[in-house]
Amino acid sequence: METDDLLQSLRWRYAAKAFDPERPIADEAWDALEEALRLTPSSYGMQPWKFIVITDQATKDELIQHSYGQKQVGNCSHLLAIAVQTDVTEADVDRFMASTAETRGVDVGTMDFFRNMVVGDIVNGPRGEDIVGWGKLQAYIALGNFMTSAALLGVDCCPMEGFSPKGYDEVLGLADKGLTTAVVCPAGHRAEGDKYADLAKVRYSKEELFERV
Amino acid sequence: METDDLLQSLRWRYAAKAFDPERPIADEAWDALEEALRLTPSSYGMQPWKFIVITDQATKDELIQHSYGQKQVGNCSHLLAIAVQTDVTEADVDRFMASTAETRGVDVGTMDFFRNMVVGDIVNGPRGEDIVGWGKLQAYIALGNFMTSAALLGVDCCPMEGFSPKGYDEVLGLADKGLTTAVVCPAGHRAEGDKYADLAKVRYSKEELFERV
Repeated sequence: METDDLLQSLRWRYAAKAFDPERPIADEAWDALEEALRLTPSSYGMQPWKFIVITDQATKDELIQHSYGQKQVGNCSHLLAIAVQTDVTEADVDRFMASTAETRGVDVGTMDFFRNMVVGDIVNGPRGEDIVGWGKLQAYIALGNFMTSAALLGVDCCPMEGFSPKGYDEVLGLADKGLTTAVVCPAGHRAEGDKYADLAKVRYSKEELFERV
Repeated sequence: METDDLLQSLRWRYAAKAFDPERPIADEAWDALEEALRLTPSSYGMQPWKFIVITDQATKDELIQHSYGQKQVGNCSHLLAIAVQTDVTEADVDRFMASTAETRGVDVGTMDFFRNMVVGDIVNGPRGEDIVGWGKLQAYIALGNFMTSAALLGVDCCPMEGFSPKGYDEVLGLADKGLTTAVVCPAGHRAEGDKYADLAKVRYSKEELFERV
């Protein structure tokens, strides 16, 4: 695509605080955003996440209280909660290796070296010591990809760290599934009159943000 | 843009392990990718990062040893290292508030409520307890945005957690600037014959990854 089209979309986006309840996200756009999320790269390819898509109004409304009262959780079209595994085991690694072997038509035994490297890092090694922290980093890649993809499709969203993971986990029944909420992102189309839509975007200059070596 | 065009780009991308040294990224594309990085959303809009762009061959070569010997660090066109602040102070928050006030033409005093909320969270509050961890999450948003933006412009890259932050910080002189390397992403154009380019992408199915409420 043309560089101008990309940048125009990135400039168009903002953290929408109010969504138009009369204008839900079209199925085709949402399906594509789910596929974009699915295609998100992750460390070792492990995909230690689950994408929870909440469209049930009662559930969205219930989650407002676990979001410091932020109403965009209730008036959005699709509420995305990205959850990550609270534990990553050898079985998870083996499942991923089996999936890789099947997809690529190779014998899973050929992947032993890679398999043991991954186990030695995220199960028994340094990253295993804070596996939720590692998972959250991956979730934020998905968030970044999601926000950019949404902007390109003309869909608004509002990335949020201001929520109670415990509250979300309870309402969504995640703890029993070995998951915890990493980050939340209501999506929809901006409401006319959302006063935040017209505010100038605040970013430091390239000179301030970049260093060249 | 059309959903198919977005998904085609996301399917086209992969973690390139070899870049074509004869085909550096064109200036126009790289400038746009820097602008995309600059526009990345972050928590509270704080942008607790610095983007280090390394094109100096000797420096790239020196960093290979701090990247577990991974050669794409040396043969890429542009090596992106996303660094984050090792500390975030009230002065940082005030600088951001001043920038916001100036950009939006409002009196900085009108932002006191927001200012104190941010200080109460990332300086003196819960997120301040692990400010590098918080910064790294933001860096991964930038990484996700960067990878998607690059794919859309036909630029390859290779996201990497396999490196020594200490080694990078030393070579790049970051510690003295209150920064540490969060994540690294060599970029360029894939070399013909990179055997990873033709491997089928491995992702779990939507059924496995999504839950609908």
